[in-house]
Amino acid sequence: MTRGTAPDKIDHLHPEKRQGLVVVLTGDGKGKTSSALGMVLRACGHGLRSCIIQFMKGDLYAGEWDGIKRLGDLVELHHTGKGFCGIQGNPYPYEEHRANAQDAIDLVLEKMAGGQFDLLILDEINNALHLNLIDLEQVIDLLDRKPPLLHLVLTGHNAHPTIIERADTVSEIREIKHAFRRGIEPQPGIDY
Amino acid sequence: MTRGTAPDKIDHLHPEKRQGLVVVLTGDGKGKTSSALGMVLRACGHGLRSCIIQFMKGDLYAGEWDGIKRLGDLVELHHTGKGFCGIQGNPYPYEEHRANAQDAIDLVLEKMAGGQFDLLILDEINNALHLNLIDLEQVIDLLDRKPPLLHLVLTGHNAHPTIIERADTVSEIREIKHAFRRGIEPQPGIDY
Repeated sequence: MTRGTAPDKIDHLHPEKRQGLVVVLTGDGKGKTSSALGMVLRACGHGLRSCIIQFMKGDLYAGEWDGIKRLGDLVELHHTGKGFCGIQGNPYPYEEHRANAQDAIDLVLEKMAGGQFDLLILDEINNALHLNLIDLEQVIDLLDRKPPLLHLVLTGHNAHPTIIERADTVSEIREIKHAFRRGIEPQPGIDY
Repeated sequence: MTRGTAPDKIDHLHPEKRQGLVVVLTGDGKGKTSSALGMVLRACGHGLRSCIIQFMKGDLYAGEWDGIKRLGDLVELHHTGKGFCGIQGNPYPYEEHRANAQDAIDLVLEKMAGGQFDLLILDEINNALHLNLIDLEQVIDLLDRKPPLLHLVLTGHNAHPTIIERADTVSEIREIKHAFRRGIEPQPGIDY
């Protein structure tokens, strides 16, 4: 798959110390969930096992649900939730959103304790916390219980300052512009 | 793979108008290339075909090279270049970096004309332009020639204002903090 311009040999980094990182992807721009998915793809290349837990995905089909099936048994995906709490048109009461997010937290604890994954993606957990569907103490508890070699990626708007403080790597993804503001509908493969 | 909390049925979006978007991912934070890779994963779920052209990847192994092999024949990846031009330790002269980037532009034109892809990732092209390895006119020419339904994703630091102007969706990924600033080595699956 390489061309004549590709390097003659490939060098490999081998960190002296393996360390499980806490990565936060926040901000109002496009690219938080897709960046987490890209890390899953990258992790597969190293033979690492990933688990994606989507906190607020709801019932709207997302391409990654079938995309990750192609990655085989290295990746597991769970989509929980009833869509975005509080946005127009969402018919579910707060209590139901909260009960779903609480189930997702139990699932994270179970997957963390199981020890079978190298990378755990907590998709939209920042937003779930911001909307009080889960409590700050619960997320801090997750971070406290994180096994040293497990990578934890927390995505979603409005990451809590305490979580940012605890993280190793944090990116804020800012919207400079977005196609939907010009009336362009969400496009499969790009937006969902 | 879903739990009891998952929705009872899945809704599908079907945009009335399909449109190939120009997406720019720029900024100094972690998440540009990984976000583009996540879009590839997502596109696979919709049965769309992707081509990734890495402009400045060089000879350092990246997990996505093997990760994308798992996605099968929907994805093609080309890594060109001799690593980052101008950074400490890079032994190649400017002319060689430029020649490589020029080859990559030819490859993009070839893939665009071939018409076999729905999503074309131009990884680090913003940076290649910023370093004068390619010219602004060449990138504008790519945008002018883009087939209407092809999605084009341009990643890398220092996106040119003219390219931002031309794009449909632009995210700036800002570094709030990064593990390497505390002396933590790059970790496989997360950083490469």
